[in-house]
Amino acid sequence: MDEYQVIVWEEEQLQLLDQRRLPHEVRYNSYEDHGEVAEAIREMVVRGAPAIGITAAYGMALAARQSAAADVAGLLEDLERAGERLRAARPTAVNLSYAIDRVLERARKPALETVEAVRSALLEEAHAIYEDERRANRRIGEHSLELVPQGASIIHHCNTGALATGAYGTALGVIRAAHEAGKEIFAYVDETRPRLQGARLTTWELQRLGVPHAVIVDGASGHVMRTHGVHLCVVGADRVVANGDTANKIGTYNLALAARAHGVAFYVAAPTSTIDLATPSGDAIEIEQRPDEEVTHVGEVQITPDGTEVRNPAFDVTPASYISAIITERGVAYPPYETSLRRLVLGGE
Amino acid sequence: MDEYQVIVWEEEQLQLLDQRRLPHEVRYNSYEDHGEVAEAIREMVVRGAPAIGITAAYGMALAARQSAAADVAGLLEDLERAGERLRAARPTAVNLSYAIDRVLERARKPALETVEAVRSALLEEAHAIYEDERRANRRIGEHSLELVPQGASIIHHCNTGALATGAYGTALGVIRAAHEAGKEIFAYVDETRPRLQGARLTTWELQRLGVPHAVIVDGASGHVMRTHGVHLCVVGADRVVANGDTANKIGTYNLALAARAHGVAFYVAAPTSTIDLATPSGDAIEIEQRPDEEVTHVGEVQITPDGTEVRNPAFDVTPASYISAIITERGVAYPPYETSLRRLVLGGE
Repeated sequence: MDEYQVIVWEEEQLQLLDQRRLPHEVRYNSYEDHGEVAEAIREMVVRGAPAIGITAAYGMALAARQSAAADVAGLLEDLERAGERLRAARPTAVNLSYAIDRVLERARKPALETVEAVRSALLEEAHAIYEDERRANRRIGEHSLELVPQGASIIHHCNTGALATGAYGTALGVIRAAHEAGKEIFAYVDETRPRLQGARLTTWELQRLGVPHAVIVDGASGHVMRTHGVHLCVVGADRVVANGDTANKIGTYNLALAARAHGVAFYVAAPTSTIDLATPSGDAIEIEQRPDEEVTHVGEVQITPDGTEVRNPAFDVTPASYISAIITERGVAYPPYETSLRRLVLGGE
Repeated sequence: MDEYQVIVWEEEQLQLLDQRRLPHEVRYNSYEDHGEVAEAIREMVVRGAPAIGITAAYGMALAARQSAAADVAGLLEDLERAGERLRAARPTAVNLSYAIDRVLERARKPALETVEAVRSALLEEAHAIYEDERRANRRIGEHSLELVPQGASIIHHCNTGALATGAYGTALGVIRAAHEAGKEIFAYVDETRPRLQGARLTTWELQRLGVPHAVIVDGASGHVMRTHGVHLCVVGADRVVANGDTANKIGTYNLALAARAHGVAFYVAAPTSTIDLATPSGDAIEIEQRPDEEVTHVGEVQITPDGTEVRNPAFDVTPASYISAIITERGVAYPPYETSLRRLVLGGE
C-alpha cells in the first residue's frame, strides 16, 4: 500500500487531508492559524480520536508561532487560551485533551527560557505525539493477532484507519494486521450513519489495503450475524473510562448488543492515550450532540420534510460488560477492567 | 388530518402516490397496464406489505381489462400469468400472494359466466381488499390502546402508516390511535436505511397527524433506550409465520435486540393478511436482496468509492422470542404464538 498522509507538517504549515471530500476527491487544506484548526476539527475535516489529538498538538504549535508575546510567561498565557479553544472543538474524545495537556506540560518546562525555545519544543512535542500514535497503532495490530482466527468474518463500525489515527489504524489496524498476516479475513463495513464514515472512508482504506469487504447498513449487523456467521466485531474508541465503559461512534452500542445476542466477540482497539482513568464510569462521559443537518441531509440532498426534529448524538456508551477485551499498544486488557486498564496505563510497558 | 389517498382507482385507471418523491413532492402516477404495476411495486413507487397487496389486486383488475380473451377460460389463463408477474415483483411480503390468490379465487367462481362478469368481479374484489385493510388497520389501533401507556416514548421503524397500508397504518396506526386517544406520546423515528422510509415518509405522516416526534439514525436506538427511557417499540411486518417469527424491514431485528437488553416491550402490528401459517418458522422466509445502489447512493449523491461491494438484504427476521405481542385486527396475540396466531387466523373474529 502507498501510505496516504493524513496529517502533514510542511513549511511551517499544517496540511490536513479533507476527509469530508473522500472518497471522491483527495484534497489537502493548509492551516497557519490555530483557530482555523479548531474549526477544522469541529467541522470534521479531520476526525477520529487519535487523529484529532495529533491535529490539536500541531494546532498548539501554530498558536505558539502566532503569539506576539515578548516573553515565555506571555506565550504560556496565549497557549492556555489556544488550548481551551482547541479543546472545545469536540467534547467527547479524550485524546484532544490528552494531546493539549501533553503539549502544555512540555511548554511549561523551566528549561525553556525563550519564546523561540518554547516554539521549537512544541513542534517537537507534536511530532512526538504523532510518532507515538503511529507506534501504538502498530503494536495494537501485533497484540490483536492472537484474537483473530484464520478466515474470520469481522464487523467493523465507523472509521478507525490511518484516516482516524494518523497511521495504520486501531480497529482497522486489527483488520489490517490480520490481513497482512495472511489470515484471509472478510470485513463487513457498517456504513455508520449519519456521517457514513464506514461507507466513505473505511471502504476507501480497505480498497487500498486489498482487504475483501462489503458495506452493510448499520441496521443489518444482527441479520448478518444470524444468517452469515460472524467471528468478531472490532471498533475503536473515543474514550475508554476506568471501568472499561467505552464511548465510541453512535451505533457501536447497538452492534455490541447484537454481538452479545449471538455470542460474537466484541473488541475495542484503542491506544492508551484514549483511556481516561479519571472518569469512573460511562455515565460521566459527555456525549456531543451534532447538528441536525447530518441526519436531515446527505450531501446536498434533503431527506426529511422541512422542520423535522432530530436527535443526533455523535457517540454512545457501550458498557464494559459487553466488551470481550480492549486491545491497546501495551497489551490486551480483559475484564475486570478496573484492574487490567489501570495496570496497563500506570504500569508502563 | 386531511387523509391523503395512496392508492386510487379512478376512471378505469390505477393512481399511485409516488412514494419515492416524498416528502418533497406529492405526485401521482397513472397505470393501465398490470406489467407497469408490477414494475411500480418492484421500484417501490408503492411499498409496505398491505399497500402492495392492494396495488397487486388492482393490477389484476387491470390485467382482466387488458386481456383479449374471448371466453372466461382464456381470461383465467391470462390472469394466472398476470398473477405470476405481479407476485414476482417482490418476494418477501406475503400480502402480495394473499391478494393475488384472493382475486384469482374470485375470478374462478363458476357463477361468473362472461368475461365482463369476471372483470367487474375482480374490480369489486380489489375494492373489497382495500376496504378490508382499512378496517383491519382501524381495529389494530383500537386493540393496541391497552398496550400504550399515557406519555409513552415509542421507537418506530420504517414506515407503516397510510402510505404503507392504504389507510391509517399498522404500527403507525398504533401510534396514531394512542395520539388520538390523548395519550401524549412521543415517537422516535428510526430513519431506516437504506431507503430512509422513516426519515422521508413516517415523518411526513406524523407531521400531518400532529404527533410529536424526532428522527434518529438506526444505530441510535440502544443509546436512546439507555439514556432517555423508552416504553415500547412498535413495528409492522412483511410476513409473520406460524411460530411468530417476523420478517420486517432490515434493522427491525437490531431494534428488537436493543429492546430486549433494556426490558422494553417490542410489539409487531400487522393485519392477519400478513400472517402465513403455512410457513413454520422464519428460517424458511426468502429474504429479498435489493440493488447495491440503495446503499451506495442517496438520491444522486454517491457515497462509497467506485466498485465497493454491498450486501443489501431488504428484510430481516426477528425471532418470536423477541416479540412481546402481535397486534392484529382480530385481537392481540401473545406467546406461545403457535397457538395464539392459529386461533386468531382460523378461529375468526
